Amino acid sequence: MRGAVLYGRGDIRFEERPEPTIAAPTDALIRLAATCVCGSDLWPYRGIQPVARPTAMGHEYCGIVEEVGSQVRGIKPGQFVVGSFAASDNTCRVCRGGYPSSCVQREFLSGAQASRLRVPLADGTLVATPDLPPRELLPDLLATSDVLGTGWFAADAAQVRPGNVVVVVGDGAVGLLGVLAARQMGAERIIAMSRHAPRQKLAREFGATEIVTERGDEGVARIKELTGGFGADSVLECVGTQESLMQAIRSARPGGYVSYVGVPHAVALAGEPLFYSHVHLHGGPAPVRRYLPELIALVLTGKIHPGRVFDLRLPLTQVAAGYRAMDERRAIKTLLWPEEESGR
Amino acid sequence: MRGAVLYGRGDIRFEERPEPTIAAPTDALIRLAATCVCGSDLWPYRGIQPVARPTAMGHEYCGIVEEVGSQVRGIKPGQFVVGSFAASDNTCRVCRGGYPSSCVQREFLSGAQASRLRVPLADGTLVATPDLPPRELLPDLLATSDVLGTGWFAADAAQVRPGNVVVVVGDGAVGLLGVLAARQMGAERIIAMSRHAPRQKLAREFGATEIVTERGDEGVARIKELTGGFGADSVLECVGTQESLMQAIRSARPGGYVSYVGVPHAVALAGEPLFYSHVHLHGGPAPVRRYLPELIALVLTGKIHPGRVFDLRLPLTQVAAGYRAMDERRAIKTLLWPEEESGR
Repeated sequence: MRGAVLYGRGDIRFEERPEPTIAAPTDALIRLAATCVCGSDLWPYRGIQPVARPTAMGHEYCGIVEEVGSQVRGIKPGQFVVGSFAASDNTCRVCRGGYPSSCVQREFLSGAQASRLRVPLADGTLVATPDLPPRELLPDLLATSDVLGTGWFAADAAQVRPGNVVVVVGDGAVGLLGVLAARQMGAERIIAMSRHAPRQKLAREFGATEIVTERGDEGVARIKELTGGFGADSVLECVGTQESLMQAIRSARPGGYVSYVGVPHAVALAGEPLFYSHVHLHGGPAPVRRYLPELIALVLTGKIHPGRVFDLRLPLTQVAAGYRAMDERRAIKTLLWPEEESGR
Repeated sequence: MRGAVLYGRGDIRFEERPEPTIAAPTDALIRLAATCVCGSDLWPYRGIQPVARPTAMGHEYCGIVEEVGSQVRGIKPGQFVVGSFAASDNTCRVCRGGYPSSCVQREFLSGAQASRLRVPLADGTLVATPDLPPRELLPDLLATSDVLGTGWFAADAAQVRPGNVVVVVGDGAVGLLGVLAARQMGAERIIAMSRHAPRQKLAREFGATEIVTERGDEGVARIKELTGGFGADSVLECVGTQESLMQAIRSARPGGYVSYVGVPHAVALAGEPLFYSHVHLHGGPAPVRRYLPELIALVLTGKIHPGRVFDLRLPLTQVAAGYRAMDERRAIKTLLWPEEESGR
């Protein structure tokens, strides 16, 4: 089997990798129908988070189950499944508390930019669709695996409610799907912070009511101006830098809710401004598994089309071009068709 | 009139100060029935937060209204009142949203360690009792003005609910009243982190079910051990240092709630451990005014006795001794009887 392997900064290769096999009785093997490149893949690709050794990349996936381990009960070969980037048993106290991405048995998946993938804790991690979905829904279903689930968590963690004023910091795929999620949750106003025309356009299509192009101090001042001087009820921080997080905190009203869903890089929150901001802060690795049944249902009934964030769709063989386009911000998000799928 | 003035590190003086007067039509003047020293007064007293000029100290108060400005409607001379340390109009959008301590007209009070005090925004800031309370209730009523309201906010912001496992970090007066608040809110287990016998005793009297004497890594390990490896549902951080805040975050379960109510001093929260902790974080200057009616009612009906944190009670003339006792941790909290009250 061939798959994407990152060797170092900017050096992603499509090469032969060992075929995955059932390693534990709770595993499933799936043949990927679609996979993609995550914003978080760009951190090691850019060398900001160096890889110690060649690393099989990819953690967003959907596809057909080929084989299951002897202890797998709910998932069966032949089913179409979507799973979270974090494997979870979905039974422990942490999972039952709503945080499968901190499951006591959690494993972060990697290696999904390939033809096949081993998924641990298959019963807890995977959700099967009732039928085999049509090919045109694959981008939407793939999106539920991480990028939509993460945008959804951003909106949920920021307590988006009907009538709320919402700000989304970050116009990457997660931020854009944070807009979509906020719309689904009934927000009255959704202010997307973006300075890129194609992303502004998609933000509006997903439900943004206003666009703010300013950043930093000016961005905060603009949000205050748009909210009668108070700040927003909910702010979704979908970048993961010090600047974006402080911008988010300062854009919220006292008592407002700020979520952050990107792994923070070199962030140190000063205690005093956080204290006086009076915000609620919540975030972390998105508990995507919690949302998957609902999100898959929304996709299958045609209510949402999160797959529109995939503005570049390539055969997996061209994975390097997919990373490059995202790195250079020519693409919002790259979908990759595995080899066997490319000819379909 | 005489009152307490801080000149610099360790230099608190009881001296003549100008008599306060009605300066704005929304002001009230009150004759203090009781006042006290706050844990936060110790930061400038210890020189950690230096004062630029001699500063009139004190922001916890209750007493009799002597005079009101021409626009004051709800508060009348002769009434017994309690107010928050933060003056608020109680009508702006921020107040209505539950955060009077971030009111658009907020003023932090100072100068309450004296015989009389000017309170701005009297209608929004003060709450009157139905009758003049008996002297034995003054410590309990005084406590509602800040230290109980802050402990109450700590429990509320940490989402204490019936059945919860609660940890309280900090055995100062705020932490101890955080225990009392958690008990009132129906917590099942309340674990107080304290290594001082008299404070442990009061914590138990206020409702703590367990005491943990370890701190830092060992303290976190002990909390994990006591919670089946998961961490607590709610953690109240009532100190305000980097160490105590990280201890609180690490003591919470994934998806748990951490509150912080002391002004953070030299705190910088690293993004990554916060992200992976999966906690909810909320805090800031306690919106005491929101809770005052409820807390005063609990005191007047004898349901709670928060005044027990005042284990040292001195005439205001001895304010310097009151600061010293708290600084040296010989007293949990010092109540001060204003001059005219001392002889009662």
